[in-house]
Amino acid sequence: MRTIFYISDGTALTAEAFGKAMLSMFPLKVEHKTLAFIDSLDKAQQAVARINKAYTDSGERPIIFHTFVSVDVKRIITSSRGSCYDFLDYFVAPMSKELGIPAQPKTHRTHGIQENGIRESYDFRIEAVNYAMANDDGSNVSDYDEADIILLGVSRTGKTPTSLYLALHYGIKAANYPLTEDDKLENLQLPKVLKAHRHKIFGLTLDPQRLHEIRTKRREGSSYASLQQCRYELNEVEKMYRREAIPFLDSTRFSVEEIAAKILAETNIERHRF
Amino acid sequence: MRTIFYISDGTALTAEAFGKAMLSMFPLKVEHKTLAFIDSLDKAQQAVARINKAYTDSGERPIIFHTFVSVDVKRIITSSRGSCYDFLDYFVAPMSKELGIPAQPKTHRTHGIQENGIRESYDFRIEAVNYAMANDDGSNVSDYDEADIILLGVSRTGKTPTSLYLALHYGIKAANYPLTEDDKLENLQLPKVLKAHRHKIFGLTLDPQRLHEIRTKRREGSSYASLQQCRYELNEVEKMYRREAIPFLDSTRFSVEEIAAKILAETNIERHRF
Repeated sequence: MRTIFYISDGTALTAEAFGKAMLSMFPLKVEHKTLAFIDSLDKAQQAVARINKAYTDSGERPIIFHTFVSVDVKRIITSSRGSCYDFLDYFVAPMSKELGIPAQPKTHRTHGIQENGIRESYDFRIEAVNYAMANDDGSNVSDYDEADIILLGVSRTGKTPTSLYLALHYGIKAANYPLTEDDKLENLQLPKVLKAHRHKIFGLTLDPQRLHEIRTKRREGSSYASLQQCRYELNEVEKMYRREAIPFLDSTRFSVEEIAAKILAETNIERHRF
Repeated sequence: MRTIFYISDGTALTAEAFGKAMLSMFPLKVEHKTLAFIDSLDKAQQAVARINKAYTDSGERPIIFHTFVSVDVKRIITSSRGSCYDFLDYFVAPMSKELGIPAQPKTHRTHGIQENGIRESYDFRIEAVNYAMANDDGSNVSDYDEADIILLGVSRTGKTPTSLYLALHYGIKAANYPLTEDDKLENLQLPKVLKAHRHKIFGLTLDPQRLHEIRTKRREGSSYASLQQCRYELNEVEKMYRREAIPFLDSTRFSVEEIAAKILAETNIERHRF
């Protein structure tokens, strides 16, 4: 099997994003290895030894996706027996020409917080995480004035992971509110506490069979997990979304990244806050 | 000011990762716009209109980072007046040659969950998020057998955001345990509940001045937030980390991405679980 190495003198998150996007175009089973913070000649030599060993062990040439600021460290990596890909290198010249300024590579600029002003934007995300935690699962309905968005849905439709992702990745203050039997699901009305915040509400729903599977893992054999109950809850909730003209998304086939991106696309909430 | 557009027929997360890494090399103030799910000729035409308007309004040529599966949609975008960059396009031919197979572009493969087996790996991450939520702030010390890592630290040193990031991004089950006055901070011992899990523990610490600022935002003027108290707590905790040979990180200058990547690099916890 091919070994794919993601290597960088920083977090290697950019190398991973680049490499995974490339590999997604090829139907291929591979093994992934990330070598992060390779920021000395010594560490680079060790990385090269691992790359060359992977080649010897498997007989297949490893693929290397890398991003480096240090030219010396990069030179060592590209001297390995792997097949090396560096998108920054290729695009830096045309980019520089278009922008009319020379490149000034600096370590940890992409995923770091050391730059002027970035400190503040980092706090921004952490504050959003604190908000999401304090407003998870309808625990704190008094803070909805502060919310950028309030996710609504029955139990286990992905509200919590989506709220946390929106906070961590985008710095968006996402509360979430669970619709339960306490809200009298039959002929469900929009809960009173939400009425004043209607414009911020976004609904999540799911395929009943999928919800049944998820709930079964949690409480096998319970009426809560039964397909019948899942069908009933989702049906009542979707009727309410439609009646109240609340935008909603069936998250069955989507990852948390996709759910978040779709919500932002549909609500026009700004993705770039920092 | 230059407008930077990130455009894709998917989430545009890859276009953003690519573009932001490129831009990090240029000291330049820009405006960011993401156009996600541009998956029809109609939407592509609208995107082109926005690009061209940004040009006319600012007099500066917009920069377009894009990733598309549909060739027809891509052609419309590249007919805009923006300066277009597509790293997939450039690398697909050499990549295909190296792998010995043709590219088979499919929408939503990078950040989607529709592929065989990916459903399971998606559940994996969501389960890790559920674990992190249930084991936040020392709330559930009975489940530590299941933990991949247990983050330790005094209040407001970044334990919760780091746990959630590890869960959401890597599917790692991260618990976190707060060291408080209840643990008798003077001559602090490793709390009893943690002793059996010593090999999974990772400590966080922070610069006292920074902790003082963070706590002041939370409870201004309290003794909890005083610089003296922050110094005292951090000092006792760091002494304990050293005495007990617990690996730890001063997170003051790092983003949550960097903290997570550094913890994984230091503990050798596998980054690629799905």
